[in-house]
Amino acid sequence: MSTNTTETTTEDLLKLSVKIAISNWELQNTRLNGLLDKLTDEQLLVQTAPGRNSGVYLLGHLIAVSDGMFTFLELGERLYPHLDHIFIKNPDTSGIEKPTAAELKECWNKVNTLLKQKMDSMKPADWFVKHSAISAEDFEKEPHRNKLNILINRTNHQSYHMGQLTYLSNKA
Amino acid sequence: MSTNTTETTTEDLLKLSVKIAISNWELQNTRLNGLLDKLTDEQLLVQTAPGRNSGVYLLGHLIAVSDGMFTFLELGERLYPHLDHIFIKNPDTSGIEKPTAAELKECWNKVNTLLKQKMDSMKPADWFVKHSAISAEDFEKEPHRNKLNILINRTNHQSYHMGQLTYLSNKA
Repeated sequence: MSTNTTETTTEDLLKLSVKIAISNWELQNTRLNGLLDKLTDEQLLVQTAPGRNSGVYLLGHLIAVSDGMFTFLELGERLYPHLDHIFIKNPDTSGIEKPTAAELKECWNKVNTLLKQKMDSMKPADWFVKHSAISAEDFEKEPHRNKLNILINRTNHQSYHMGQLTYLSNKA
Repeated sequence: MSTNTTETTTEDLLKLSVKIAISNWELQNTRLNGLLDKLTDEQLLVQTAPGRNSGVYLLGHLIAVSDGMFTFLELGERLYPHLDHIFIKNPDTSGIEKPTAAELKECWNKVNTLLKQKMDSMKPADWFVKHSAISAEDFEKEPHRNKLNILINRTNHQSYHMGQLTYLSNKA
């Protein structure tokens, strides 16, 4: 499109910055998938530490938060909005019936497969648009509160809980 | 510098992408600082879960990894290279004498203060240069393995252990 080498280079770097954010998100997904492959459904029901959230609760929580990205990134309808009530708005100990580990694993895969598909259709500049939960006025003052920020923030959130989920696995 | 509006916009976005990565790193630091303010030195000595790493070990580990960023990002000499032996190359149970919690808190603050200062002196394009541990040949094939990737990756690593360290705090 452009014959200006300098401009092309800057655009290339912008593309790279998005690629890096997405690949770090995918890396976290790969790690969690690896852990889920190792754990039995029974192991997922166990608390990650005494008195702390169970594996099933944290998995449901991560699904709900990732599913919420469809909204924040304006990528279409969410798949499982009802999970917010169980896994975000209420604690593990709420007594509200939870889906089974097997059901959650399926939701987890579906959310990530569709998110990846939708993200792949985004152009680099699309990531620098305001996310759905900030007003145009606030975004003008804080232009870093864009979709890329949501992705990086949610990746960190997932890493945080991955550190806890890993306590479900047997020690070497 | 430039009168080309399109180019300026792309450069602005590039600057934003770096700002977002740094601000997410700072957010993790702020969170860990908040936790460290709440915990006593005695609490930091406790295991984060039965049979898992202690707070002191994880703090030392995070210091060593952040300190390593001086090398990866080519920001000058490391402050505490000797911590690698205790907190990266050996496990919590090695029996090697560890610095005290108070000493580690001081190291943690010094590393982050200096890292922030050095990062602030970097220009956006500096983040897209290859990091110190990849060869020029490999970088040509994989240009996303740059300094920005190191920062985002290390931020995720810190979040991962932050999720574990938070288990040292009292439940609400």
